[in-house]
Amino acid sequence: MAQGSDVVTACLIIIGNEILSGRTQDTNLAHLSQVLNELGVQMREARVIPDIESTIIDTVNECRATFDYVFTTGGIGPTHDDITADSIALAFGVPLEFHPDVVALIKRREAPPEVMESRLRMARIPRGATLIENPSGGPPGFQIENVFVMAGVPSVMQAMASTFTEERLPGGRPVRSVTVGAFLGESQVAQELESIQAAYPTVDIGSYPFFREQGYGTNLVARGADQDALDEVAEALKALIEKYDATPHEGGV
Amino acid sequence: MAQGSDVVTACLIIIGNEILSGRTQDTNLAHLSQVLNELGVQMREARVIPDIESTIIDTVNECRATFDYVFTTGGIGPTHDDITADSIALAFGVPLEFHPDVVALIKRREAPPEVMESRLRMARIPRGATLIENPSGGPPGFQIENVFVMAGVPSVMQAMASTFTEERLPGGRPVRSVTVGAFLGESQVAQELESIQAAYPTVDIGSYPFFREQGYGTNLVARGADQDALDEVAEALKALIEKYDATPHEGGV
Repeated sequence: MAQGSDVVTACLIIIGNEILSGRTQDTNLAHLSQVLNELGVQMREARVIPDIESTIIDTVNECRATFDYVFTTGGIGPTHDDITADSIALAFGVPLEFHPDVVALIKRREAPPEVMESRLRMARIPRGATLIENPSGGPPGFQIENVFVMAGVPSVMQAMASTFTEERLPGGRPVRSVTVGAFLGESQVAQELESIQAAYPTVDIGSYPFFREQGYGTNLVARGADQDALDEVAEALKALIEKYDATPHEGGV
Repeated sequence: MAQGSDVVTACLIIIGNEILSGRTQDTNLAHLSQVLNELGVQMREARVIPDIESTIIDTVNECRATFDYVFTTGGIGPTHDDITADSIALAFGVPLEFHPDVVALIKRREAPPEVMESRLRMARIPRGATLIENPSGGPPGFQIENVFVMAGVPSVMQAMASTFTEERLPGGRPVRSVTVGAFLGESQVAQELESIQAAYPTVDIGSYPFFREQGYGTNLVARGADQDALDEVAEALKALIEKYDATPHEGGV
């Protein structure tokens, strides 16, 4: 993976037994990667971990020391299995406190006392954290130092991510990509592809085979922050495909 | 996450810039988790990492010391960006060698010399590894000690995973799950749900809210290896939902 010295990195920690068990398909990684890329922040790792306090603490502490930004999804609801806020507070060694703005938001909707008590669990925010607004209407997420704690439900996570700005998440240059697909075997183009990669070290070239009803082939994906180099690579990839009498499909097959 | 002393654990390492960038949606985790569960092996972590040799080596070495089994997907094709086999060999400190069975398989399909040379990259297997058969017809994966190296293309990964047996992957007891959904807010049932969880420590109870056009609600999922306890929890969850004049939907909403 090509990188300059100005690369700003992120890691996503997906907290949830239901993702690990295969019951639920995560879609938050793909969405957040794209949102962050527009801010010039590169997703460099993702981890899916179970709802176990010690695992959350260890993973958060390891990742926040390694990456510029860490994001978590999942486990911030009102039920007993929602242990993310507690675990993050323990990871930072700070107490959880009822945040007055979140308490006020939650109390806007009336409820019987025991239901309100459960809902108010979502107002417990680690001391020193700032809120991540939730335009979908529910309780917010929060940011403590370089760790951003978000909901796991995709529509809510996406609403929270829509509030991210360059001011909150200073980044580098966004990575752009071009995809050129063809009904050509990977092996046919492998050697010349390697030559193109060697000629453009600031661009990452990946080859992703596909097997479809219409036939098999490969999508060649070039990624990089240098638009000029990317344009040149795109031309080289199209020429390579045409050399083998195949049709280059821009955007991929 | 409830666990007995006989729990057999696994970790999946998803190798691929295209998953991290958000261009491609991983589906291998959910599939492999379900295949392994039937063998009594519990997926306990997944990591998505980029195609960087040092990252692959460090991640594989950390995970193979932590989990009973480690699986990797991606990066075993014929192009320059396919560096998984090389990285695994480095992680184990063994050379890559042309495996005669794989060479013979690949040579069955004729090709020009430079294409054959690229395809034969896929016959390079770490010394001491055994093959993972590929019923989809292409080159196999391989197993070295407790690490299983598989293709990234879902149809090929699934074909390889279909060859796994209890003999190759000795496991414990499979985890079963029951799901009961209802159009009830999570907070309404939170306190009583916690009481049910406390009464059944061998069962994991998770609450997963949903927001749909027909309304919002929650799916309550109980997971465990003890079928009797699971049946009792399922009855308790249904009774809890009915107490609030809602309809329990078995299998989830």
